[in-house]
Amino acid sequence: MSSESKKVVIALGGNALQEAGTPATAEAQLQVVEKTCGYLADISCKGYEMAIVHGNGPQVGRIVLSQEIAQQADTDLPAMPFDVCGAMSQGYIGYQIQQSLRDALRNRNRNIPVVTLLTQVVVDENDPAFRNPTKPIGPFYTEEEAMKLTEEKGYVMKEDAGRGWRRLVPSPSPKRITEIDSVKRLWNTTIVITAGGGGVPVVENMDGSLRGVAAVIDKDLAAETLAEDMGTDFLLILTEVDKVSINFGKPGQRDLSHITVAEAIKYMEDGHFAAGSMLPKVLAAIKFARRFPGKKAIITSLYKAVEALEGEAGTTITMA
Amino acid sequence: MSSESKKVVIALGGNALQEAGTPATAEAQLQVVEKTCGYLADISCKGYEMAIVHGNGPQVGRIVLSQEIAQQADTDLPAMPFDVCGAMSQGYIGYQIQQSLRDALRNRNRNIPVVTLLTQVVVDENDPAFRNPTKPIGPFYTEEEAMKLTEEKGYVMKEDAGRGWRRLVPSPSPKRITEIDSVKRLWNTTIVITAGGGGVPVVENMDGSLRGVAAVIDKDLAAETLAEDMGTDFLLILTEVDKVSINFGKPGQRDLSHITVAEAIKYMEDGHFAAGSMLPKVLAAIKFARRFPGKKAIITSLYKAVEALEGEAGTTITMA
Repeated sequence: MSSESKKVVIALGGNALQEAGTPATAEAQLQVVEKTCGYLADISCKGYEMAIVHGNGPQVGRIVLSQEIAQQADTDLPAMPFDVCGAMSQGYIGYQIQQSLRDALRNRNRNIPVVTLLTQVVVDENDPAFRNPTKPIGPFYTEEEAMKLTEEKGYVMKEDAGRGWRRLVPSPSPKRITEIDSVKRLWNTTIVITAGGGGVPVVENMDGSLRGVAAVIDKDLAAETLAEDMGTDFLLILTEVDKVSINFGKPGQRDLSHITVAEAIKYMEDGHFAAGSMLPKVLAAIKFARRFPGKKAIITSLYKAVEALEGEAGTTITMA
Repeated sequence: MSSESKKVVIALGGNALQEAGTPATAEAQLQVVEKTCGYLADISCKGYEMAIVHGNGPQVGRIVLSQEIAQQADTDLPAMPFDVCGAMSQGYIGYQIQQSLRDALRNRNRNIPVVTLLTQVVVDENDPAFRNPTKPIGPFYTEEEAMKLTEEKGYVMKEDAGRGWRRLVPSPSPKRITEIDSVKRLWNTTIVITAGGGGVPVVENMDGSLRGVAAVIDKDLAAETLAEDMGTDFLLILTEVDKVSINFGKPGQRDLSHITVAEAIKYMEDGHFAAGSMLPKVLAAIKFARRFPGKKAIITSLYKAVEALEGEAGTTITMA
């Protein structure tokens, strides 16, 4: 690829990996991933150099749940801790994307290597998120079981909308991608799938060694960190809608084609973006646009991705 | 690293990842992996450039088993197929090695990046192994369940030493490492963990696309393929014993320090090497020594690895 290629980090939302309402079999997911990879290959064919960051919520949830069930049935099958489950989900999802994207590229006569890097992302042990866990993971428990888990393992448990009790883990900010050197070495020639699920969260011990922690790093923020490290031209956040809206789903809904950081912050303060849904995407976009005035963060759907990169679709967020 | 560094592919046996008789918790395994990584870091400190191929037998076995149990308990948790389970095991084991090896290197003031590449290895759909599955995987079933699985899913099932019936999968030969370009790009600067568990086995469809299959690629043969691709100076196969023996565990046991390919073949034909244990290691060593007359395949323990590379321990296999 020429040095004039535009560079983009692509954050893939959950709908790019699994269709709502269909069974969670590997076969059904692979079909969705194959479709997704067609759109990703089209971006590559336009000459963009890209890296891919994917979510892992439903997948890691099922891994945790399967392991808990198996452990209860058979003590020789100890459940893996949450960081290891995250690493497993990177292997599983990365494999499906890397295989499908290679094939989609070949179908378009583009023989670009695609590879998944197992990625750890450093978070700060003093991140305030650790004092306020917010992300529910794994199975539902009875109140009694929940109390026992709090007592025995120190888990933070919370009642979840009448469906039972769930463990909450913190969602700290990404500080550093441990494997960034490898991403940089591969970037020019290879499509790298990295920081899957936001990366396996690790903290630095006093001696500089790393230790996995039970936490979820927002994958859009991890993608933003990668885009900063690589100085890419675009941060492209793909989700279910073509554009960000204000008054979403209400009278007076208005779809936004371009907003400045200042406008994005105002809409955010006015409560237009739902926590756990559009809000983290807008936050990641703001961070990127602030860091690189003149560059573009884009939020759109997979289907509009190519058009959005050309400035003809999606919501673009820039500094000014 | 200088261009004069000696290059080595290291195949790690199961005992490098998990201790027999200890619980299969992530914490217990991480302790074993940390110890292993101290020895691997010592090899790096001697100036060798290396890549690591690890086994995954017990780990992928537990993943398959957990998923089967979970699926029976909850139909919303469909068991992943064997290729996806292999990819999950690459994520899980790669994460533990990459984290521990980085720390072990840092402790030795050696800041070399370590990264796991999710790796697919192409096998030939016409490999005779597909007509004669030999590798037992996953849970034990009753005869009735086994018959049902054969009928419904086409599984090959076999009674296993009175303990019940198990699924057998083939063990075809590795043909090509799909992600070899990325290994090559990273090699000079980075310790790459690749082809974990022998790689996720894939076959090429008529149109050149890849498809995962239920099979187990011998990890020593996958390491040998990598060593051929990279033209390394050594193939180092680490196992539980310091040297290969003839008459192992019998009167007249003799430990071998150096054997030629011709001698190795003779011992093999005389039945000195146990199938599923020393035999595949010797076969991989023979393949490497034949491919590169003048270069060395070494079989030894983790503890003797450095000495063996210097020619002072282990069993060396060479063409002449």
